[in-house]
Amino acid sequence: MVKLTVTFLGTSSAAPSKSRGLPAVAIQREGDLLIMDCGEGVQRQVLEQGLGLNRDTTILITHLHGDHVTGLLGLLQTMSLAQRRKEVVLVAPPALFDWLRLTSELLHIGLTFQIRFVPAKRGLVLRTQHFDVTATRADHSIEAFCYIVREHDRPGVFFPEKARALGVPEGKLWSRLQGGRKVTIGGRTIAPGLVVGRRRPGRTIGYSGDTRPSKRLSKFFFGVDLLIFDSTFASKDSDKALERKHSTAREAAALAKECHAKKLVLTHFSARYKNVGNLVKEAKAVFPATTAAADGLSIQVDYPEE
Amino acid sequence: MVKLTVTFLGTSSAAPSKSRGLPAVAIQREGDLLIMDCGEGVQRQVLEQGLGLNRDTTILITHLHGDHVTGLLGLLQTMSLAQRRKEVVLVAPPALFDWLRLTSELLHIGLTFQIRFVPAKRGLVLRTQHFDVTATRADHSIEAFCYIVREHDRPGVFFPEKARALGVPEGKLWSRLQGGRKVTIGGRTIAPGLVVGRRRPGRTIGYSGDTRPSKRLSKFFFGVDLLIFDSTFASKDSDKALERKHSTAREAAALAKECHAKKLVLTHFSARYKNVGNLVKEAKAVFPATTAAADGLSIQVDYPEE
Repeated sequence: MVKLTVTFLGTSSAAPSKSRGLPAVAIQREGDLLIMDCGEGVQRQVLEQGLGLNRDTTILITHLHGDHVTGLLGLLQTMSLAQRRKEVVLVAPPALFDWLRLTSELLHIGLTFQIRFVPAKRGLVLRTQHFDVTATRADHSIEAFCYIVREHDRPGVFFPEKARALGVPEGKLWSRLQGGRKVTIGGRTIAPGLVVGRRRPGRTIGYSGDTRPSKRLSKFFFGVDLLIFDSTFASKDSDKALERKHSTAREAAALAKECHAKKLVLTHFSARYKNVGNLVKEAKAVFPATTAAADGLSIQVDYPEE
Repeated sequence: MVKLTVTFLGTSSAAPSKSRGLPAVAIQREGDLLIMDCGEGVQRQVLEQGLGLNRDTTILITHLHGDHVTGLLGLLQTMSLAQRRKEVVLVAPPALFDWLRLTSELLHIGLTFQIRFVPAKRGLVLRTQHFDVTATRADHSIEAFCYIVREHDRPGVFFPEKARALGVPEGKLWSRLQGGRKVTIGGRTIAPGLVVGRRRPGRTIGYSGDTRPSKRLSKFFFGVDLLIFDSTFASKDSDKALERKHSTAREAAALAKECHAKKLVLTHFSARYKNVGNLVKEAKAVFPATTAAADGLSIQVDYPEE
């Protein structure tokens, strides 16, 4: 099984604390690296966590608040110092692209690689070799997006005994059937469905960025294997969550329950809470499969059926 | 004695390492805080070192390379989240000011305080209540400045026995004389020089930013109490120092010797050196009063004559 690993690089909200840096989440799958939001300090965490500067890298920015963006400059610069040549794909609200061009010039951030700019929008945003990225609008104080990273489906399980019973010899023809193509043997055509189970869905990770919960998001995140959700406040500060267009831990849990997520990770904690134990408790009362993110925490994402 | 403390917030060159962050140095003197360069991560170090977000703050930027600047955004944003009202003085090459205005708007960094922009230039740049800041041109790949922070002179030592011998009664008149003003007593005028020693020079800290050594800098930094100097490379990599317009540790030491600095601190180390022991050794052979900077290291600056 190919590992799909989510690593939290920064888990504070607007201001960092001694133990939490600004927002960023990494997703690794073999040579692929996706980074969701780039808070200040992300390059140091990429180094610390050994994520590498030369992977097939896609960066997804949810919105243009400084604390979700400013780490981008240092990350790109350090990739260049490491003589990266491969392009980086950058998905973001398009105003970021002009800012990045201007800033790179003014701050002499000479890039050794191309950036492929992909404007964030509702629906399918990007298809890579191993993932689809879809987005919807968040409910935040400025234009903001939520993302789902969806691994491509895998072929169904291959049943060797069925293939043998149908007289298909082991080897190339098995691979062909497993790949979803039919084969012809002794004048008979054998459809892959006869020897291969149904295609198995890939794993899905949902990332809310900064947002209020909403009906749209319950629908958008339906059935995700891992939901990473804004959990800035405790319930006692729900007035602040409402005012600043963030969510409480309990609201994150209610949404996870409503959208039938498999697991919930709370993140983007306000620095006012020295300890997030109470937020986790409030969330678990609603949705037991809840974990609190911490800087450096890694989580393996399992296949839905396994 | 009022303490004058230099704290190193980041001591790497262009890219951070696991133990060194990007360039920034803090100078504290009672309620005053000066920050020289603002590498990514500076706000986290300000927090870590307990420097406070509401001091009388002056920020001095040497040049517009990303690794010396990008931490500025987060620092200003976090000061605003802490509801700072006092202005911040920002000394920098003026192109930074436009960039900062544009970036603050685009990245929604709503400031709760004014920034007083002071363009860097040769000569006296800024006079604050306790310091003069002077600058000269560095020898780097782009326009860059070196700074000296010079504490104002203190009044000379007061000699009570001399005052008494001249018939000046203890109290207000002593303060007046100590403050450098004459007093009249029984028809006689007594000049402060009769009871007060010579004014004592304040402490001086020189900061090179990124530069090659030069004659101009030897002259500029003449006699500083503490010299913080570019020490990116070891002597074996002196070709790289030359090419990239940086200095070796040995060159920093030779300059410290030539300008009769009291103490030298090496900083801005290339991440290629896991251990800077060799750089320190090379420098000490030339200028024994040499220390290597480390993230979080604090140094007290002594008065010249003490």
